[in-house]
Amino acid sequence: MTVDALDLPTAGRFVGRVHRFPVRVYFEDTDFSGVVYHANYLRYMERARSDMLRVAGIDQRDAFATGAGVYAVADLTIQYRRPARFDDALQIHSTVEVLRAAACIIDQRILRGDELIAQARVTAAFITPDGRPRRQPADWVDAFTRLLPTP
Amino acid sequence: MTVDALDLPTAGRFVGRVHRFPVRVYFEDTDFSGVVYHANYLRYMERARSDMLRVAGIDQRDAFATGAGVYAVADLTIQYRRPARFDDALQIHSTVEVLRAAACIIDQRILRGDELIAQARVTAAFITPDGRPRRQPADWVDAFTRLLPTP
Amino acid sequence: MTVDALDLPTAGRFVGRVHRFPVRVYFEDTDFSGVVYHANYLRYMERARSDMLRVAGIDQRDAFATGAGVYAVADLTIQYRRPARFDDALQIHSTVEVLRAAACIIDQRILRGDELIAQARVTAAFITPDGRPRRQPADWVDAFTRLLPTP
Amino acid sequence: MTVDALDLPTAGRFVGRVHRFPVRVYFEDTDFSGVVYHANYLRYMERARSDMLRVAGIDQRDAFATGAGVYAVADLTIQYRRPARFDDALQIHSTVEVLRAAACIIDQRILRGDELIAQARVTAAFITPDGRPRRQPADWVDAFTRLLPTP
Repeated sequence: MTVDALDLPTAGRFVGRVHRFPVRVYFEDTDFSGVVYHANYLRYMERARSDMLRVAGIDQRDAFATGAGVYAVADLTIQYRRPARFDDALQIHSTVEVLRAAACIIDQRILRGDELIAQARVTAAFITPDGRPRRQPADWVDAFTRLLPTP
Repeated sequence: MTVDALDLPTAGRFVGRVHRFPVRVYFEDTDFSGVVYHANYLRYMERARSDMLRVAGIDQRDAFATGAGVYAVADLTIQYRRPARFDDALQIHSTVEVLRAAACIIDQRILRGDELIAQARVTAAFITPDGRPRRQPADWVDAFTRLLPTP
Repeated sequence: MTVDALDLPTAGRFVGRVHRFPVRVYFEDTDFSGVVYHANYLRYMERARSDMLRVAGIDQRDAFATGAGVYAVADLTIQYRRPARFDDALQIHSTVEVLRAAACIIDQRILRGDELIAQARVTAAFITPDGRPRRQPADWVDAFTRLLPTP
Repeated sequence: MTVDALDLPTAGRFVGRVHRFPVRVYFEDTDFSGVVYHANYLRYMERARSDMLRVAGIDQRDAFATGAGVYAVADLTIQYRRPARFDDALQIHSTVEVLRAAACIIDQRILRGDELIAQARVTAAFITPDGRPRRQPADWVDAFTRLLPTP
C-alpha cells in the first residue's frame, strides 16, 4: 500500500516566521471539570515544536539515533487565559525568539480562532544522550537563524 | 482572524467504509524502552473513533451537552504486532463491524505503511450522563448503518 | 471485603508546613530519550496538590459536585534541573506561599533524595463550574491559613 | 537528607499469590464525561505489574540497562464494568496465571472496595532491547513460579 498524502499527519506550516500547528481536543485531553487538563497544553506545545523542527528541516530522530543529542525543556512559563473544551479546534503558534549555542527560547501561543487560550515561553536545551549540554549542530543553527526576526 | 483550512486539524476520511486517520508519534507517546507505550495506542484509536463519528455527521459534544448521552468503551481487545517509534507516521483504520441498539463494535488497525502495528476490537456502549445504557439516537443509527458492510 | 489500611493510597503528610508526597516513576512517565517527559512533572505536582488539600481537610470532589467550584491552574513556572528516570522514587514538596481571596500560590519542588529535579511556582485559582473566579470557601481559607508561614 | 520510610512510594503487597496495589484517581485520570478515561486503567495496571515485579525481587531497570531485555505487552483484553471517578481509592489485584519461557499471562482486576470496576488479561512478552522475543532470566522464572497456583 502506498500512503496517500491525504493520509499523512500534518506538520503545520510557517506563515512568516510563525509556525502554525492545528490540534483537536479529544476525550483524553480533558478532565472531569469539563476543560482541557492544564498539563496537556504542554503536550500540544511539544508536538508543535517537534513539527516546527521537522518543517525547518531538522531531523530529531536521526540526531538522537546517531548520538548527536536531543532537546530537553530546561525552563517553562505558561499563563492559562481561557479554558479549551472537548472538540475544540485549536492552533499552536510557535516563534523562535532567542537562539543560543546550546539552547533556544520559543514563544508559544494556543489559540481558538481569535481567542488566546494560553501563552508560554519555553527554553529548550540541546543535550547529549547522557544529559550534558552541547552546542546545537551547525545546520540546525542555520535553520533556526532563518526563523529569527530580522534585527 | 479567520482560520484558514490549512490550519484546521484533519478528521481523516472514509475510503469505502473504512475511516482512515493519520497520527504522528511524538515524545509524549513513547517510553524509555524506545517504543510507543502500549496504552497510548488506545488514545490514538479513541481520536480516530471520535473523528470517524465527526466525519459521519455525529456531534458527540452536542449529545453530551444536551444530556442525550455519551459513548463509553465497554470492552476492548488488542494485539500488539510490532513496535512503533518516535517520529513514525501511522494510520488508524476503523471499521464499524456490528451495530446494536445501544452499542457498536468497531475493528481498528494501526498501520505504518503496509505494516500492521496493532489490531483491536472495541465495543462502545451509548450511556446516559449518569451511566445507564441507552439506545443510540435514531439519526446516529442511520449514520452507522450507512457505514456497515452490505449484507 | 473491608479495605485494609495497607491497601489505601498514601496522601502524603505534612512536616511542618511542607506537604511531602511520594511518587514512583513508571514506564508511562518516561519518553524514548530515557528520562521523565517534561509535562509529566505537572501531573506529579497536581497529584501532590490534590493530596495536600485532602490532608488539610479540603474535599475537592464535594466542592465540585455541589457546584461550589474547582481549582484551575492560572499560571505556572517550572525549572528543570536534573532528569528523573524509570524506577526512581521521587518526593514532591509543596508549600503554600501566598493566599488570596480567590487564588493561592504554591511552591513545589521535586526531589530524588537530596537532589533537586525540578522546582515550580503554581498559581491555582478557584473558579465556578462555568469558569468565573470565585472566593474560596471560608473553611478552606482557614485550612490554608494554618499552612502559611508565621509572619 | 535521608528519606523516611513514610515518604517512599508504596509498591503494594502480596496477599497469598495476589499482588494488591492501591491507586488514587486524580484530575489527570478523568475526562469531561466525569469518569476515568478508559486508556488510563492500562496505566494503573502497568504500575501494578511493575511493582508486583519489584516486590517479587525482579529489577526491570537493571535488566534494561544491562541489555538483558524488557517486558512488552503483546496482547490485552479488558472489560469495563463500572466507572471510577475523581478521588476514588482503587485497588489493582494482579495474579500470574500462566508462565511461559518468554512470556507470562497476568489476570488483573480493578476494584473500588467490593465493586469490580474492570478486569483484564494481559500477556507480557520478554524481548531484547531491539525487540526480539527472549527467554526470561532464570531467576525471574523462579520468582514467578513461586507466585503460581499450586497445581
